Amino acid sequence: MAGSKKAVVLLSGGLDSATAMAMARAEGFEVYAMSFRYGQRHAVELECAAEQAAVAAKEHRVVEIDLRAFGGSALTADIDVPKHEHVEELSDEIPVTYVPARNTIFLSYALAWAEVLGANDIFIGVNALDYSGYPDCRPEFIEAYETMANLATVAGVKGEKLAIHTPLIDLTKAQIIQLGLDLGVDYAKTTSCYDPAPDGRSCGRCDSCLLRKKGFTENGIADPREYVV
Amino acid sequence: MAGSKKAVVLLSGGLDSATAMAMARAEGFEVYAMSFRYGQRHAVELECAAEQAAVAAKEHRVVEIDLRAFGGSALTADIDVPKHEHVEELSDEIPVTYVPARNTIFLSYALAWAEVLGANDIFIGVNALDYSGYPDCRPEFIEAYETMANLATVAGVKGEKLAIHTPLIDLTKAQIIQLGLDLGVDYAKTTSCYDPAPDGRSCGRCDSCLLRKKGFTENGIADPREYVV
Repeated sequence: MAGSKKAVVLLSGGLDSATAMAMARAEGFEVYAMSFRYGQRHAVELECAAEQAAVAAKEHRVVEIDLRAFGGSALTADIDVPKHEHVEELSDEIPVTYVPARNTIFLSYALAWAEVLGANDIFIGVNALDYSGYPDCRPEFIEAYETMANLATVAGVKGEKLAIHTPLIDLTKAQIIQLGLDLGVDYAKTTSCYDPAPDGRSCGRCDSCLLRKKGFTENGIADPREYVV
Repeated sequence: MAGSKKAVVLLSGGLDSATAMAMARAEGFEVYAMSFRYGQRHAVELECAAEQAAVAAKEHRVVEIDLRAFGGSALTADIDVPKHEHVEELSDEIPVTYVPARNTIFLSYALAWAEVLGANDIFIGVNALDYSGYPDCRPEFIEAYETMANLATVAGVKGEKLAIHTPLIDLTKAQIIQLGLDLGVDYAKTTSCYDPAPDGRSCGRCDSCLLRKKGFTENGIADPREYVV
């Protein structure tokens, strides 16, 4: 990979970011994967991230951050994760699983690493369709972040252009899965669950599980992940 | 202070942020001060921040973050801090004491806390004049950050306007000091040094010490901070 352009890829261990990483590789980037241990209940994510990075990344860093210091989310605080029987029950409201400013913080660490690496490209697997209603997954947020990032760094001052790539932004979950399968992503080694069982199996009933299952069903493919229900 | 508006204030322990916090208080805000332990050599900063917060803030949080994971700065890595005899020797180049994406990361944590607190105001003591040439201290960076922040959060989606206040942005160091003295800031309990002695005294020869000393000299006032030289 000598001479390849470097890209920092935000890697959660979920289906989306694993696919985004595969797309960065397919575009010829040398991948520097970055994950976060942020007090999430579902630490099985980080095991999946490590397994994905082992096959696709030149380097993988796990940054310790303490979002719990602020509370405010069912993913990090003592609030129950909502459960449903069917995907149609998902609400239009911004859900309690929203973590305040999470993507803003994650992108800021990615920006710092990109600057040190001399990378001008950051990949994030946000998705504006099946996106659970988080404000920091919207295209207008990403565009504003990119504008800010180009004013934040020495590279930007020197006229280099940093790009935030969102290759999944307009895709349905089913399209993302199809793309990832074409690129050889092993989805058995990804988890999307907000509230996995102690043995790591996905709950099958949180918003994220329901959206994922729907994506596999629409492709007529079995989801290789193990579920409780 | 019941009924006061809340503001998150980024508090480094330096002269500028102590003054910005005093100005937030003078504007009637209830102050939530946030500092960072980020592998800086000069941990005496955090003692000063705690002393400042004790008199002016409702609450003070110190967030642990590991910027050293990325290296790249004399403030956090094994690069020598440049020393000079006179302020005129300061270079126009972006200095090696620049920390990649530091203000971007700090503001992102402030944004997360503001969202949880229900605060719509963040204060940061950046300064575009005596600012050592860091890209993330420029007004255009702050404006772009504010635009992004208003797209990042649930509060923004609901139409609340988050403001990033930079009350020092156009002031000289001498003007900042004059303002702070009028507001009762105890500058003996602030430190600006990039490379303090083991006993906490300021070196007197780094860029930041030289700019600070110049500010006091221009006011015809003695700097209450102790210096090595």
